[in-house]
Amino acid sequence: MRITIIGSGNVATHLSAALKNAGHRIVQVYSRNMHNAALLAYHVGAEAIDSLQEITGDTDLFIVAIKDDAIAEFVPHLSSFNKLIVHTSGAVELQQLLDFISNAGVFYPLQTFSKTKEVNFREVPLCIEGADESIAKMLEHLARDISNNVYRVNSAQRKVLHLAAVFACNFTNHLYSVGEQLLSGSGMSFDMLRPLIAETADKIKEHRPADVQTGPAVRNDDLTMQAHLQMLKKQPDLQEIYTRLSQDIIKNHNTRHGDK
Amino acid sequence: MRITIIGSGNVATHLSAALKNAGHRIVQVYSRNMHNAALLAYHVGAEAIDSLQEITGDTDLFIVAIKDDAIAEFVPHLSSFNKLIVHTSGAVELQQLLDFISNAGVFYPLQTFSKTKEVNFREVPLCIEGADESIAKMLEHLARDISNNVYRVNSAQRKVLHLAAVFACNFTNHLYSVGEQLLSGSGMSFDMLRPLIAETADKIKEHRPADVQTGPAVRNDDLTMQAHLQMLKKQPDLQEIYTRLSQDIIKNHNTRHGDK
Repeated sequence: MRITIIGSGNVATHLSAALKNAGHRIVQVYSRNMHNAALLAYHVGAEAIDSLQEITGDTDLFIVAIKDDAIAEFVPHLSSFNKLIVHTSGAVELQQLLDFISNAGVFYPLQTFSKTKEVNFREVPLCIEGADESIAKMLEHLARDISNNVYRVNSAQRKVLHLAAVFACNFTNHLYSVGEQLLSGSGMSFDMLRPLIAETADKIKEHRPADVQTGPAVRNDDLTMQAHLQMLKKQPDLQEIYTRLSQDIIKNHNTRHGDK
Repeated sequence: MRITIIGSGNVATHLSAALKNAGHRIVQVYSRNMHNAALLAYHVGAEAIDSLQEITGDTDLFIVAIKDDAIAEFVPHLSSFNKLIVHTSGAVELQQLLDFISNAGVFYPLQTFSKTKEVNFREVPLCIEGADESIAKMLEHLARDISNNVYRVNSAQRKVLHLAAVFACNFTNHLYSVGEQLLSGSGMSFDMLRPLIAETADKIKEHRPADVQTGPAVRNDDLTMQAHLQMLKKQPDLQEIYTRLSQDIIKNHNTRHGDK
């Protein structure tokens, strides 16, 4: 397929590299920032452009990989070509494209990308939605060219997915940060926690998280929890987070085990 | 060294295997449960015992790897041998051993062990404390036989380490579980989140967590946060956790960047 990439951020970068490696042709890379456009275009053998007038309709698919709130503004610049347009956002409804064009879909990679860190794209979950079944089928086919994990996800589900990712990833990363703060406050290095964090993430590759929950809350070890809250007495925000999460662990555990 | 293992749980199992592999001799494995004692003793070539009378003083070190609240009760059974005694707990102070014997220390592996999952012990952080410098040195030496990550940690620091581990690991695992619940409530599989969780943990191997924080809170994306809270309106506990963690992320970010 001939593919045009709108954007030059992390998603645009990783996605276009994966598509090119799978044998597709990246025709143009558009970015308001010519330097970024040129850098990405060079890597994927495409033409770099930074003006809307240079966008050509000589393509099969526009992938709009730009900030969420810029998508609805940008699409009118593409709709006159009457080619398939997809966005790559977890939070934006398909409807935002359908307001301008019926030939539309979503191609959402559920992963956290950094430009400096390689990702094995074959393991990235790709969440597909199409304005109709033939579009969905086509996007699914394209997705399978670059990933082993392709899912049909509607706009309502995609919002839930995004919310779940906030809990399981953004909040998780913040808890790593809390761990680091606590250690540095007592003259210890975050290196001490790194192997434990790696193992905690590794465990759920094969298990459901609730089945491998450990710690004072799931044991209902009240003495330890009280001691921990006491240690946090000068950090009321962390005390509150500790209490809320512990209560939720206890509640979940009791629900699973049929207690009240 | 000749080493006696008290206990047959996860820590006893992984620790004694690592010590034996490093060339030390496990003399006896004591457990109240003869089946467990025999299983572990078989693996490490030791004698299995389940009665206190059979414990011999013909050893250099007792490693007491049993539940926290059983340690103080057990130590009097060993103190008459006048050999070095260590416990392996993150939460128990060295003082609990010193009440019975001066020849005491702590040998705390900071890792989450499962009997069915292999762990590369060379990467497990071992936290050492000794009643005096010569004991600490000796334990440090022993620790280096089995791990590349050996730390001197006093009882106050060890408590902080344990608390930090609750945040970075126990609470993190619960957030994975929340993610799973949200997905299953919308007919989606936890498999969709697994690669993102793996990548989130992988990122902090090379970075400080605060440097790679992503998501709506750190971007101060109020519209998305409001939409997420709206989606959670029937789950007030999760709403509260969402709010508290987001506020803490915003506060941390502002502190780092010098805002009020």
